[in-house]
Amino acid sequence: MAALTCSASDLQSLLGGAANATAAAEYICTRFVAVSDHFVDTAYAIDNTYLLFSAYLVFAMQLGFAMLCAGSIRAKNTMNIMLTNVLDAATGGLFYYLFGFAFAFGSPFNGFIGKQFFGLESFPSPSFDYGYFLYQWAFAIAAAGITSGSIAERTQFVSYLIYSSFLTGLVYPIVSHWFWSADGWASAGRADGNLLFGSGVIDFAGSGVVHMVGGIAGLWGALIEGPRMGRFDHEGKSMALRGHSGTLVVLGTFILWFGWYGFNPGSFLNILRTYGDVGSYYGQWSAIGRTAVTTTLAGSSAALTTLFGKRMLAGNWNVTDVCNGLLGGFAAITSGCAVVDPWAAIICGFVAAWVLIGCNKLADKFHYDDPLEAAQLHGGCGAWGIIFTALFAKETYVNEIYSGKPGRPYGLLMGGGGRLLAAHMVQILVITGWVSVTMGTLFWILHKFKLLRISADEEMAGMDLTSHGGLAYAYYDEHDDEMQKKSFMMTKVDPYV
Amino acid sequence: MAALTCSASDLQSLLGGAANATAAAEYICTRFVAVSDHFVDTAYAIDNTYLLFSAYLVFAMQLGFAMLCAGSIRAKNTMNIMLTNVLDAATGGLFYYLFGFAFAFGSPFNGFIGKQFFGLESFPSPSFDYGYFLYQWAFAIAAAGITSGSIAERTQFVSYLIYSSFLTGLVYPIVSHWFWSADGWASAGRADGNLLFGSGVIDFAGSGVVHMVGGIAGLWGALIEGPRMGRFDHEGKSMALRGHSGTLVVLGTFILWFGWYGFNPGSFLNILRTYGDVGSYYGQWSAIGRTAVTTTLAGSSAALTTLFGKRMLAGNWNVTDVCNGLLGGFAAITSGCAVVDPWAAIICGFVAAWVLIGCNKLADKFHYDDPLEAAQLHGGCGAWGIIFTALFAKETYVNEIYSGKPGRPYGLLMGGGGRLLAAHMVQILVITGWVSVTMGTLFWILHKFKLLRISADEEMAGMDLTSHGGLAYAYYDEHDDEMQKKSFMMTKVDPYV
Amino acid sequence: MAALTCSASDLQSLLGGAANATAAAEYICTRFVAVSDHFVDTAYAIDNTYLLFSAYLVFAMQLGFAMLCAGSIRAKNTMNIMLTNVLDAATGGLFYYLFGFAFAFGSPFNGFIGKQFFGLESFPSPSFDYGYFLYQWAFAIAAAGITSGSIAERTQFVSYLIYSSFLTGLVYPIVSHWFWSADGWASAGRADGNLLFGSGVIDFAGSGVVHMVGGIAGLWGALIEGPRMGRFDHEGKSMALRGHSGTLVVLGTFILWFGWYGFNPGSFLNILRTYGDVGSYYGQWSAIGRTAVTTTLAGSSAALTTLFGKRMLAGNWNVTDVCNGLLGGFAAITSGCAVVDPWAAIICGFVAAWVLIGCNKLADKFHYDDPLEAAQLHGGCGAWGIIFTALFAKETYVNEIYSGKPGRPYGLLMGGGGRLLAAHMVQILVITGWVSVTMGTLFWILHKFKLLRISADEEMAGMDLTSHGGLAYAYYDEHDDEMQKKSFMMTKVDPYV
Repeated sequence: MAALTCSASDLQSLLGGAANATAAAEYICTRFVAVSDHFVDTAYAIDNTYLLFSAYLVFAMQLGFAMLCAGSIRAKNTMNIMLTNVLDAATGGLFYYLFGFAFAFGSPFNGFIGKQFFGLESFPSPSFDYGYFLYQWAFAIAAAGITSGSIAERTQFVSYLIYSSFLTGLVYPIVSHWFWSADGWASAGRADGNLLFGSGVIDFAGSGVVHMVGGIAGLWGALIEGPRMGRFDHEGKSMALRGHSGTLVVLGTFILWFGWYGFNPGSFLNILRTYGDVGSYYGQWSAIGRTAVTTTLAGSSAALTTLFGKRMLAGNWNVTDVCNGLLGGFAAITSGCAVVDPWAAIICGFVAAWVLIGCNKLADKFHYDDPLEAAQLHGGCGAWGIIFTALFAKETYVNEIYSGKPGRPYGLLMGGGGRLLAAHMVQILVITGWVSVTMGTLFWILHKFKLLRISADEEMAGMDLTSHGGLAYAYYDEHDDEMQKKSFMMTKVDPYV
Repeated sequence: MAALTCSASDLQSLLGGAANATAAAEYICTRFVAVSDHFVDTAYAIDNTYLLFSAYLVFAMQLGFAMLCAGSIRAKNTMNIMLTNVLDAATGGLFYYLFGFAFAFGSPFNGFIGKQFFGLESFPSPSFDYGYFLYQWAFAIAAAGITSGSIAERTQFVSYLIYSSFLTGLVYPIVSHWFWSADGWASAGRADGNLLFGSGVIDFAGSGVVHMVGGIAGLWGALIEGPRMGRFDHEGKSMALRGHSGTLVVLGTFILWFGWYGFNPGSFLNILRTYGDVGSYYGQWSAIGRTAVTTTLAGSSAALTTLFGKRMLAGNWNVTDVCNGLLGGFAAITSGCAVVDPWAAIICGFVAAWVLIGCNKLADKFHYDDPLEAAQLHGGCGAWGIIFTALFAKETYVNEIYSGKPGRPYGLLMGGGGRLLAAHMVQILVITGWVSVTMGTLFWILHKFKLLRISADEEMAGMDLTSHGGLAYAYYDEHDDEMQKKSFMMTKVDPYV
Repeated sequence: MAALTCSASDLQSLLGGAANATAAAEYICTRFVAVSDHFVDTAYAIDNTYLLFSAYLVFAMQLGFAMLCAGSIRAKNTMNIMLTNVLDAATGGLFYYLFGFAFAFGSPFNGFIGKQFFGLESFPSPSFDYGYFLYQWAFAIAAAGITSGSIAERTQFVSYLIYSSFLTGLVYPIVSHWFWSADGWASAGRADGNLLFGSGVIDFAGSGVVHMVGGIAGLWGALIEGPRMGRFDHEGKSMALRGHSGTLVVLGTFILWFGWYGFNPGSFLNILRTYGDVGSYYGQWSAIGRTAVTTTLAGSSAALTTLFGKRMLAGNWNVTDVCNGLLGGFAAITSGCAVVDPWAAIICGFVAAWVLIGCNKLADKFHYDDPLEAAQLHGGCGAWGIIFTALFAKETYVNEIYSGKPGRPYGLLMGGGGRLLAAHMVQILVITGWVSVTMGTLFWILHKFKLLRISADEEMAGMDLTSHGGLAYAYYDEHDDEMQKKSFMMTKVDPYV
């Protein structure tokens, strides 16, 4: 607000000949100060409106995950997986309030972990308001949702309770501290300007922080548990265990798409910010719109690539594959969405589709069973997204968004040198290492204590019957009319009116 | 905008020595007036954006109710209950436009009922714009949705049409007039400052006005109709009549959660309002964020309490119970969401979970059958929420939100005395009384005229067949290929590609 | 911002007697300029927030279409139709980015087609930002979604790929150029003021541009393909082929309703605009709220009319009919939503319901089979909506929204003469002609090359099995426990706790 500040003493000397120059100057300047203050309030109102509704959209992704997961597994474990999705949000709410947010964004402390704002103490402050907490909570619960997909249909519920709390409450917050907080050792917006490779990591909305974390955690869980019964036959041949509802898969995918507009463009956190000139049509609102467009295009391009790619490989037009491809495109663009041009997003999605197809081939080869393809999709495409950003990040956009440090590195293929790529390779390695050490160890301990996998009998019967009080569906009622039962089978019932 | 007003005559005397002090002062002041006017427009644009999108979220709750209700009942009555949910919105639209809004917010009239703005006459006005009507309409239709859950699977459709119109068009608007309009006899923001017990009722988003009204109405309907056939066996033992789709229950619950961010934080109606100092980071936007957080935490805490509580009592991890617990937490925090601290919201949710479990035990004991637990959840947890607010409302927040009357009572346990609690006990009694007299009488009359309950044959066959043109689902087609029918039964279809 | 502009030279002469009048005047004026610039930024932030979230809502309609379509057809073609809905969004994303937007809004060129902004080149500009592209993309994909409903259950997938690209990439963009771009020959907001019949077409949110285009395209596709097997019996009697899930129909309908709040009120594109006086409570935000209300009332009135109308005609209370009626009301009000009063919207919906019933009767008579009633609903009710606007558009509203050309025609029944009606009749004829020539020809060519309709065997088996890798649902698992299979049939499982 520089140009708006009004100095009464300066103005007073200019008005020197007036009857009461001092009072006149003060009279005028007081009003300009009030104007300036009103702009501050106005900005808070706009930015919080933007952030809160973005947070609501990100929260809606939890519903998307629930439906996608439910549809992708067999009917007999539906209640189980949906319960994990509901609890991710609920447990996440309490834990992220009590300490998760403190670990992630509490500062000043050090580059590894934060420690402030436990239980939202001294909230709100000039740096953080409640809307910001809500937005970060909605992110935190997404990671746990990814993992539960990888180990679906065979994990003891008590194990879920343990790993999910550990992931949302500790493992994820620490990663987000590293890359997103003002103190994080690898943050591109680090307050002290001491950036990793002079660059820091540009993981704008979290291909690494969210998707790789969830994916790698799932990878270890699924590896240690082993595949579901019947997933590979006696000769090791891969047998698809089809999900019970393609409709739920599509429903979940569309809701995730919808929510991703909160996830990616929302990560700007505020919308009223100028880039350079005040009063120009170009500002953060444009960058936000562009981010929504890159997100859309990456998903679209990945979906189409998958459609034709799978048609060639498998001979049919498969909607669940297209949905997974689409989500792979989103997971990939999440890192660079804000700093690349729309045309680059199309490349991002195209490659993401093939990364997913490749990872799935590999998984099959190694008899790795992931009912949601979560490790492949969020881990594999997430990692590609991190590399993609280091290749295609555009100088202008990087400097607009991570301002105040001119001459910083940007995408290798855009002429920005290799330092951003170096930082991003470090991110991939560090996230893989950290999640492997923490979550891998945890899953291994649970396995050793026989807490991880359910029994073969339970797996046959399905967990809904053995642990959750009954199956998800009851379409027929044996006590009811025979007529009714038959009617469920019929389609030609009524003469049309 | 006090500090921004510019008086040309004041300024003129200060500029006395200038060539044309009068014109100079006017020149400057005219511009400050224009600035002030632009701020007014800006505020309208922001606040309406905030209110409209909040209204859309509240409307989405109707979809949530529809899915929750459908999933919680048997397949054979799915079309019936979904029709009631669609019609709640549609009938509500017409009736609330024609007279509901007038009864609720028309003023000046008296403390009992309003009478202005029939058919939105003389809309918009400085006090009410169309966005406000839309927001209130979305609230009005929620109450009717609650009631239809209580009396599901056994109520004649014509009865539904009657009670639903009566509830949305008259009973609910009058209650909202009492507690929310500037003329309401129990409103905490009453224009003439003559507050009930010097306090008025703080039912911020309507644990009483919406949830208790819907719940008590449902209680009477379900009591007068009696339980569904088979709900209690010959020895009076309770038999669960499981809903036909847990997936729909979870889908509905998540959508309701999503929509509740419009319901609770949205009830501030505008976001650009300062508390005290202009230009501070703290304002109504912070209170709105805090409200979203208290809502989240109350639901989360209720969900987890229910998870472990039911695990102890019933021996399984039940997702539909967790969903109901979650919603009970939301119904409870709805009253005090804006005036309590986040830690208090956790207590609110914890107690709400036990209130719901207790009410359900009681219902079982008295052979009360409510397919959606709606009376227990919205009535019981709603009433607890009203008491909770009177215990935990924080002085600062109460004075910020209900400003202009310093020294007003607040939460008993926060040192604010018992007058708020007294007012809230009156609210519980008055709502119970009013809804019992109006809706109880109506249900009793319908019962006497044999319009209320369907016949035993209809109940066996299901209403979808007898009244709504056919069942909701037709997964098999007897005229189609045998291959297809078998395929629906298989999961191992395709070798994975 | 006229009243805010500050001329330093004017002010300087007024301050003549001051010590340094020139500097004083500049000091003061510089600050007013800064204030003015800050208002510009603020407006961009607010308007983009409004537009982006509206775009997200419109996008959500694609999910609504997917669920509505899936529920309205038989289970065996579910994967097929959902794939078309996913691909509408994805293909649309790429094509609309590459050339669709350029055809629609590129200017200056001519009244027929635009040619600028291919691949969003020179984006953003003072006239268009990314948010605007996103919003228009979400509209473009809606048209293709409508058409796929008409020809559901019998169209080859490769045909879908061809017509959908053609429709989204060329046919629709050209129509939107005519009626919505500043260069369009029939646009009511044409930049050069040379309006069709001195009026131009007021198709505010696209009853014609979107709904009629999709509906007419579907009409030709369905006519050329002929009805599904079994839809009319040997004697030509109409046999309903019931959709497989009423729940999905209601789910889709509610999501469409939700999204329509982005479609209609969102079509204002910005919210911070005054009508006349600065600083008044009445402005574009009021018009936006009013538009949300007219939309709600038209749908509500159509739903209730259909409820009672079908009850009289068919003898039952049918929820899928009510849903279709509701959507017919929305399709009709979409044209005039912004320029009519709420009471008129009720008339609009009432008539739309009968138009739909009439079109369905007609379709039956002529053995026209449209599984979604899409041509009837979007074509028929859309056409009625165009006429309705020409009858009921209110002078004040028309002049506020299409400002800068006083004395323009408005609704015939409101005293505004017949020129608007003439322009609207031209719109109906031109859209019908253009879509018939382009899409009709395309469908005919596909038909001639035997690419349009699937074989009778495929139709019997269902496309999900023959082309899409398997059925959408697998509720039972033949390899699993017998107990489980039985449990799916039971409802009275657990004693209630």
